[in-house]
This record gives sequence, C-alpha cells and structure tokens, in this order.
Amino acid sequence: MATEKWVFMVTAQTPTNIAVIKYWGKRDEARILPVNDSISVTLDPDHLCTVTTVAVSPAFDRDRMWLNGKEISLSGSRYQNCLREIRSRAGDVEDKEKGITIGKKDWEKLHLHIASHNNFPTAAGLASSAAGFACLVFSLAKLMNVDEDPSHLSAIARQGSGSACRSLFGGFVKWTMGSKEDGSDSVAVQLADEKHWDDLVIIIAVVSSQQKETSSTSGMRESVETSLLLQHRAKEVVPKRILQMEEAIKNRDFASFTQLTCTDSNQFHAVCLDTSPPIFYMNDTSHRIISLVEKWNRSEGTPQVAYTFDAGPNAVLIARNRKVAVQLLQGLLYYFPPKSDTDMKSYVVGDNSILKEAGLDGASGVENLQPPPEIKDNIGSQDQKGEVSYFICTRPGKGPIVLQDQTQALLDPETGLPK
Amino acid sequence: MATEKWVFMVTAQTPTNIAVIKYWGKRDEARILPVNDSISVTLDPDHLCTVTTVAVSPAFDRDRMWLNGKEISLSGSRYQNCLREIRSRAGDVEDKEKGITIGKKDWEKLHLHIASHNNFPTAAGLASSAAGFACLVFSLAKLMNVDEDPSHLSAIARQGSGSACRSLFGGFVKWTMGSKEDGSDSVAVQLADEKHWDDLVIIIAVVSSQQKETSSTSGMRESVETSLLLQHRAKEVVPKRILQMEEAIKNRDFASFTQLTCTDSNQFHAVCLDTSPPIFYMNDTSHRIISLVEKWNRSEGTPQVAYTFDAGPNAVLIARNRKVAVQLLQGLLYYFPPKSDTDMKSYVVGDNSILKEAGLDGASGVENLQPPPEIKDNIGSQDQKGEVSYFICTRPGKGPIVLQDQTQALLDPETGLPK
Repeated sequence: MATEKWVFMVTAQTPTNIAVIKYWGKRDEARILPVNDSISVTLDPDHLCTVTTVAVSPAFDRDRMWLNGKEISLSGSRYQNCLREIRSRAGDVEDKEKGITIGKKDWEKLHLHIASHNNFPTAAGLASSAAGFACLVFSLAKLMNVDEDPSHLSAIARQGSGSACRSLFGGFVKWTMGSKEDGSDSVAVQLADEKHWDDLVIIIAVVSSQQKETSSTSGMRESVETSLLLQHRAKEVVPKRILQMEEAIKNRDFASFTQLTCTDSNQFHAVCLDTSPPIFYMNDTSHRIISLVEKWNRSEGTPQVAYTFDAGPNAVLIARNRKVAVQLLQGLLYYFPPKSDTDMKSYVVGDNSILKEAGLDGASGVENLQPPPEIKDNIGSQDQKGEVSYFICTRPGKGPIVLQDQTQALLDPETGLPK
Repeated sequence: MATEKWVFMVTAQTPTNIAVIKYWGKRDEARILPVNDSISVTLDPDHLCTVTTVAVSPAFDRDRMWLNGKEISLSGSRYQNCLREIRSRAGDVEDKEKGITIGKKDWEKLHLHIASHNNFPTAAGLASSAAGFACLVFSLAKLMNVDEDPSHLSAIARQGSGSACRSLFGGFVKWTMGSKEDGSDSVAVQLADEKHWDDLVIIIAVVSSQQKETSSTSGMRESVETSLLLQHRAKEVVPKRILQMEEAIKNRDFASFTQLTCTDSNQFHAVCLDTSPPIFYMNDTSHRIISLVEKWNRSEGTPQVAYTFDAGPNAVLIARNRKVAVQLLQGLLYYFPPKSDTDMKSYVVGDNSILKEAGLDGASGVENLQPPPEIKDNIGSQDQKGEVSYFICTRPGKGPIVLQDQTQALLDPETGLPK
C-alpha cells in the first residue's frame, strides 16, 4: 500500500423496488430473515434511484457517511453489519494509472467515506432504504473488488434493510426466505429482466399525509408479536401466491398479476390492522384510489391496472400498457387535480412525456378532463385537490450499475469529502 | 273469532346492541347461520331503540308495514321468514274487555299492520335492523301469545337480521352459532344482565361520511367468498376469544374486556380489507379516534376505554366508569368540536347529563378545553371540526319490553293505520 494521500473511489447507481408479494415480518430480527418469500418489481432508476460514492484513502481517519448532504452516524448495527460483511470479502485492488495498490488485508485498516443521494424525497415513503443499502453494498463491492455474484451481495444488503436485497437486480425479483439459521440462503434471485415485460407502465401517487407513520421495522415487529393472522398468511397464503405470481410474470398474465398484487397488498394492510395497537398505513385518499381502480377494472371486465401500497399511503399503480396508463393518468388528474398554482411538469414527474399523450401538457388540460364514466356517481366532484402531492411516471427498470462518469461522483476526488 | 271491525294491538320497545366479539360471515345465507359465535352489549333503549306496534284486525285485507312513517314492502324473504315462523307458533288470544277472541288457527287468515320507528337516524349505521327485527318478532310474539322463551324467539329474529337475535336480551349476550342444519340451535343467550356491570359508560361518535358503504349483507358474503383470513379467524381465533370474553364479563375484568373488544374489532376490519374488492368501513376519522384511545390507554398504563366499530365509520367507545367517560368526552370534544352554530345539547345526545359533569353545559365550555397531555403532539390542532356529526352517551341497557301506555302506540286503535 502506498503511503501518499491518494483517494480511490467508485460511484454506483441502484434502483428502488416495489413488492407485489409483500415482505412483512421477520423470523430473525438481527439477521433480517423474513417469515415468507416476497416478489418485487424493480423501478426504473432513471426516475427513482440512489447514487452512492464510496471512497477509500490512507488519509481518512475514520469511516464517515453523508446521506443527502448531511453527515449521519454509521454506528448502527445495520451499517456495521454491511461494512463488516463486505470488508471480510474484500480482494486485491490495483489502479495502475494512479499507482494505487491495495492488498486484501489492507482493507481492515483503511477507512471509508460514503456519500449517498436519493433522486426522490426520502420522506415520501418510497423505499429509500432499499435502494440505499443496495447501493452501499454494491458500490463497496466494486470498490473492494469483492468477487461475489449479485445474489451473494443481496444477502449482505439484506442485513442493512430487508427489501434492499431485491434492489440488486433489475426486472422481477424474488427474495427467497431461506431456511438456514445464518441466513446465507436468504437471498434475492432475478425471475425475469426488465425487457421481459416492457409494456408495463407504473404511476406512483405520492399521497399527502399529516399522520406520523409507524416505521416498517417496528411495525412488522409488532405484527409478528401480536397479529393472530400473520402466521397464517406467512405459512398458508403466501407460499401459494409466490408460485402463482412466478407463473403470472413468466406468462405476462396481467389478469393474474393484478389479482395477486392487489389482494396481497390488501392482505398486508389487513395484517397491519390486526396488529395491537393497529397500524394504519393507508388513508382515505389511498382508499379512494383503490375504489377508482377497482371500479375501472370491473367495468372493463378484465384488469387494466394493479395497485399496491407499502408502509405508507402512496399508491403504486401498474398499468398493463401505455394506452391504459394515459387513461389512468387522466382519471387520476381528474380526481386529484393539482393546486391552481402548480406547474403540471412538477405535478407529474419521472417520465412526463406521458403528459403530452394525455393532452395534459397545456395549462388548461386538467380543467377540461371528463370523469371516467364508470365512477361518475361515486366520487362526487373535484374536491380532492391537494390530497396527492405529485405523481411519478415510471416503468420496470434495470439493476445496479457503476457510473463511470466522474462528474457524477458525490465525493471530491482530491479530498474525499462531499462536493 | 268475532266479525266486528275490532283492532287488537301490541306496542313494544327493543334495544339495539353492539358486538364486542364480531359476527362476520354466514355459513348459510338463507337461514342466516354464522361462521362463529359472537358476543354483544345491549345498549340502553332510553337512548337507542326501536318501537314497534303490531295490530291485527279482520278489517285488514293484507299485511302492511310502515318504517319511520313510510310504507315499505314486506315481500322480502327476511320479513316473510319472520312472519311465517311467528304465525306457525301463534296461540289462542282473548281480550275479555274488548270482547275479542282469536283462536290459534285464525292467525293464518288474519292480516297484520306493523309500524316501526327508530329513535335514532336509520342511516347513522347504528344497527337499526337488529333492533328492528328483534322488535318485530318480540311484538308479534306478544300479540299472538306465542309461548316461547326469548332464546327461541331469538332464532326467529335471526332470520330477519343475524344480529337481531342478540337484541332479545338486555346486558351481555352471546349468539351461539349452533351446529344443526336447520339453525334451531343458533340462538342468543344472556351472559349477564345490565345490572351486572353498571359502571360502564358508552359514548358513540357518529362519524360523518361521504362514502357510500357496502351493506353488511353483501360485505360478509364477499368476505366469505374471497378472504383467505376469514376462515382462520372463525375457526382458530374467535372460539378462544369467546371463552376469554365470557370470563372477562363474568369477572368485570375491564383490561381483558378492552383488549378483546379492540383486537376483535380490528380483526373484523382486517378481514374486510382482505376481501376482494376490499371493504373499508373505517375512515381517517375512525383511525384518529382509535389512535386517541390507544395513546390514552397506554399512557394510563391500564385500559380506560375500549373501542369497537361495526360496518361503518362510527366509533363505539366503552369507558370503564363515569369519571373516565367525562374525561373521554372532554378529549373527544377537544379534537372534534361542534361547528360554531351547533347547540351542545344537540351535539351530545342520549344521556347528556354528562355535559354538566364535564363542565361543558355552557356555551364557552368547548373553547376552553385543553388537549389531553398524552396526545398533544400527535394530532395537531382542532382542525377536525365537522368530522363527527354528533355523540350519543349511553350505557348497557335492558331487553325488550311491552309498552302498556297506549299513547305510545304507532297505529291508530280505531283504524289500525299510522297515527
């Protein structure tokens, strides 16, 4: 190892994911081992992702981390577990250009700087910890030349945040609960990549909420301890649904996919309600969005849109194709119009080229929208202004990548401090 | 039977009831046989009841019924089943004073007039059909001199509306699901009368709702058909809870009573959420009331108030005693104040002598209320104005009675038509 004050770094980007068969409940709190398998769709990192730069330098005197520009503590066991596991697998690294050589054993003595940034609000309840821990583990594995496939890395990311293991892959991903006590077989595997079913369009309604929410960590612990329905769900219901969902994805069977996605989301929230004290993640706006989708699906005779809700009120809506997504967005904007001073391009973000297709790129577009016929009678009028903060239009996306463009690094290549 | 145009009538009053272990799901739709036992508290008929007058006369040419002053059809199978069952058990009736004699067999040829009135809004979702069918069956049994005990009558009322069977008794009542195919053992029994635990005070928050609700009849059918959690609840969870609740009531064990009541209400709503499409009976206001009670109970260390919700957003809150009820009402009125032009006596109805104890009988009482300390941080301010339509203060109450005072009859004694 050279003694000069070099900084060696890697920047990576990792997607977030949304579970369509839910993870709720751990059988081992420390190792983060779940009570059932889960399946997720990876969301396009162009619209929702975490970017993390990890750096190593003999000049660093301790491990440090900055999240969205603010320094945070790495002392928690979740960070420590990930750092320990990755360090123990570190390999030899050589950068001839810079004249840097790091031997396998040097990593124990070297300190790290980590800077991480989400391109979406952390507080929006959009699985920021999933993308975050996946990106931490992925970028460190690249930095330290860890010779492990993504499934092995997923078992490390899992120890940071359970659902993070599913963000190591693009497309459709299964987290197998495993049976070993040490958790080594509790890993994510890819069911199909993002090209396999590229008709799907995903619209996320970020729902406004005053309520302080129960964190998913404490929520699922309380469910395991008190819900009399959770074990029945985990043992009797989910195993069958996992097989059915794998089939539905394999066959691009949107009707089955929707039926499984919606019922599983509802059952997860049912278990939350069966917890003592009960946990409410969905609110009246979430319920209104479900009613809207359910009525539309029934009126069409065949499912057009699937919905799923994580540990918060935001709706993740999966439309069977672009045409349906355009109609869906029109319906959503009819019922949840922006406040009058809101620019449409900041109300519909992500892939907002959809606005033009929906005839909503102009200022007066929303006011001219007509109510979808099947739901006219039930949701009175446009009095839901302000219930949705904004919409994100996205699609199934790819897994983690290294960003080669040094301008995207979050740490200064000279000082190793945030730019 | 005399041929003159006499009218012979009986007027009765029947209470409504609130389940603390819920009935949700039928194993036989036609006979209304449930998938599990349930337990209820009968509410004081002074505050919530149905009054029904039933009349018979050779002058009547067909069976007719008026509900809250409006004529309704008796052709539905629920009415027909009750009328048939009661008629088949009719006895000999003699009124010497009026010179009326009706033989057992005359009842098949005689027609009935029925007038029924609820002393609370039918639309408020306060189990009006339970009190209604119980009162129909009870008053007809008196009119026709049916020689059956209340449990046998409960099996007839059950065929009108399941929960009606529990309104044949005061106090604490169990509806045993039974096992016979004909439903003859699916009857209500009294666990304890209303004097047994007379510390309890019940406050009902009638919650405003724009949502059109799923009727409990179709809701429970959909749950039986689609929920994967319902059978587990009915077979594994409820039987144990029934035994525990019987013990809790017997011992006036408020802590156990509260724990069972709240978790069972939440589990019933969890099953609704697990239904396809999902059923939402509680709304954000219901959730806020639950949070308020849960926080208070935890801060006190021992439960002070139980909550339970039927097929609608209204909260039924059971306070352990009058002192707690006064504090509860103060807290409720702090968070859910009346609209500024509302008279307090129309905002808190039923036993509103509680207003004086709470120092809220004056006009400025509500404005001076302080937030309960344990929940100050969580529910921001008094912005919940209008979320609650009104409160009803009541208590456990007695079973059905015949009203001897003829001025309370709803039918004219000469014409047999509504007064």
